[in-house]
Amino acid sequence: MKYLVTLSFVGDAYCGWQVQKNAVSVQSRFQDAVESVFGARYPVTGCSRTDSGVHADGFCCTVQTDKAAPAIPPASLGAALNQALPWDIAVRDCREVDADFHPRYDAKRKIYRYLIWNSPNRNPLYHKRAWHCPRPLDTDCMNRAAAALTGEHDFAAFCASGSSVTDTVRTLYSLRADRAGDLITLEAEGNGFLYNMVRILCGTLCEVSFGKIEPTRLPAVLESRDRARAGMTLPAHGLYLHKVLY
Amino acid sequence: MKYLVTLSFVGDAYCGWQVQKNAVSVQSRFQDAVESVFGARYPVTGCSRTDSGVHADGFCCTVQTDKAAPAIPPASLGAALNQALPWDIAVRDCREVDADFHPRYDAKRKIYRYLIWNSPNRNPLYHKRAWHCPRPLDTDCMNRAAAALTGEHDFAAFCASGSSVTDTVRTLYSLRADRAGDLITLEAEGNGFLYNMVRILCGTLCEVSFGKIEPTRLPAVLESRDRARAGMTLPAHGLYLHKVLY
Repeated sequence: MKYLVTLSFVGDAYCGWQVQKNAVSVQSRFQDAVESVFGARYPVTGCSRTDSGVHADGFCCTVQTDKAAPAIPPASLGAALNQALPWDIAVRDCREVDADFHPRYDAKRKIYRYLIWNSPNRNPLYHKRAWHCPRPLDTDCMNRAAAALTGEHDFAAFCASGSSVTDTVRTLYSLRADRAGDLITLEAEGNGFLYNMVRILCGTLCEVSFGKIEPTRLPAVLESRDRARAGMTLPAHGLYLHKVLY
Repeated sequence: MKYLVTLSFVGDAYCGWQVQKNAVSVQSRFQDAVESVFGARYPVTGCSRTDSGVHADGFCCTVQTDKAAPAIPPASLGAALNQALPWDIAVRDCREVDADFHPRYDAKRKIYRYLIWNSPNRNPLYHKRAWHCPRPLDTDCMNRAAAALTGEHDFAAFCASGSSVTDTVRTLYSLRADRAGDLITLEAEGNGFLYNMVRILCGTLCEVSFGKIEPTRLPAVLESRDRARAGMTLPAHGLYLHKVLY
């Protein structure tokens, strides 16, 4: 039986989703929980890697059991996993999927959110949950700049250097900034994202608002494929994998 | 000089605002920060006590300095205090007030918020920030019940037993529940609140929604002045002192 599990997690304590040597990953904690529920270790596949410190409120992964496994109904599996998982990881939803479903290859769109606490003073309630930007940001200005970045483009300039990906063309369906008091939520929806792409897109919008990058130059930044011409990479702790659409 | 300071804090680590023996309070941490900025210990007065574990995004207190103190402009004092405060307490605003201003006696209204994560599965992003209620809540039903509780009433039935307060009449200007997905925000605005009153009001609305308390009986519950007839006291970690109006 194959289960599609939607997870929320607080990324602070983890090196990201993917299992790594000498570091604690969300995947390894999740595999431990699966093992404690089924009494056997089953393959767990994620919808993407996530960076160290990044959070999620809609990360998706599959658990593939075999005939030896007890046939646990999906809703019961979710509850059982939540008993076994640490406080900072939880199952939000659990359902059965076809045997050939793949959480990464079958993902049609992903939605990320980036939270910015935009006030001269920090807010403890957003400590490690939003980036604190003391300098005023203009969301209207950011949204005008965002319009130049949406669509199908080669996003090589918005990819961390050192990435081994060769095809850097992605479609960014939407990118926008909304303010509620001192909290700004940036939301990016695309058919896929390159390494650090969301954090660089958000950093670029901030630098446009600061007047450091001319919004009219953004098409040239895309065309240059030069990472140095796009904006800064915002810190991981403001980023949330919000939703995966299949 | 008298400063009015608005604070945000995460309540997890504290016994509440008020200094207590053998426990760490927000007030003691704040007094330490004041002392480290001014080089002398000055009186700090809060707008209310808060319970252990309760959070705030708009707690108010005053700092009364004397002629020996350096005349620090309010905005600079806020920034200096934020350097000295631990991560879970921060100054949101700092301004000068008249010498006779009192943060408790001059408060006209207070607004509290109570967050409920209302889903079968817990959400790590609201761990210790919202009460997890797995059983479905009906906010329309809660709002109809809330209407019976607003206004000027003797709220003795909604006050933790053992409180020494003798005048238990308060005006509840508004009480309402709003849902955004699985998150319910309850907001209560009043001219003052008795010990545990907000947590009991919110617990009563939940029990009305569960069908345990008949909404038509709420006037009789008020009239009874009997704590045992109102609903449960919800846990502290969902409660936020949101705003004090002067």
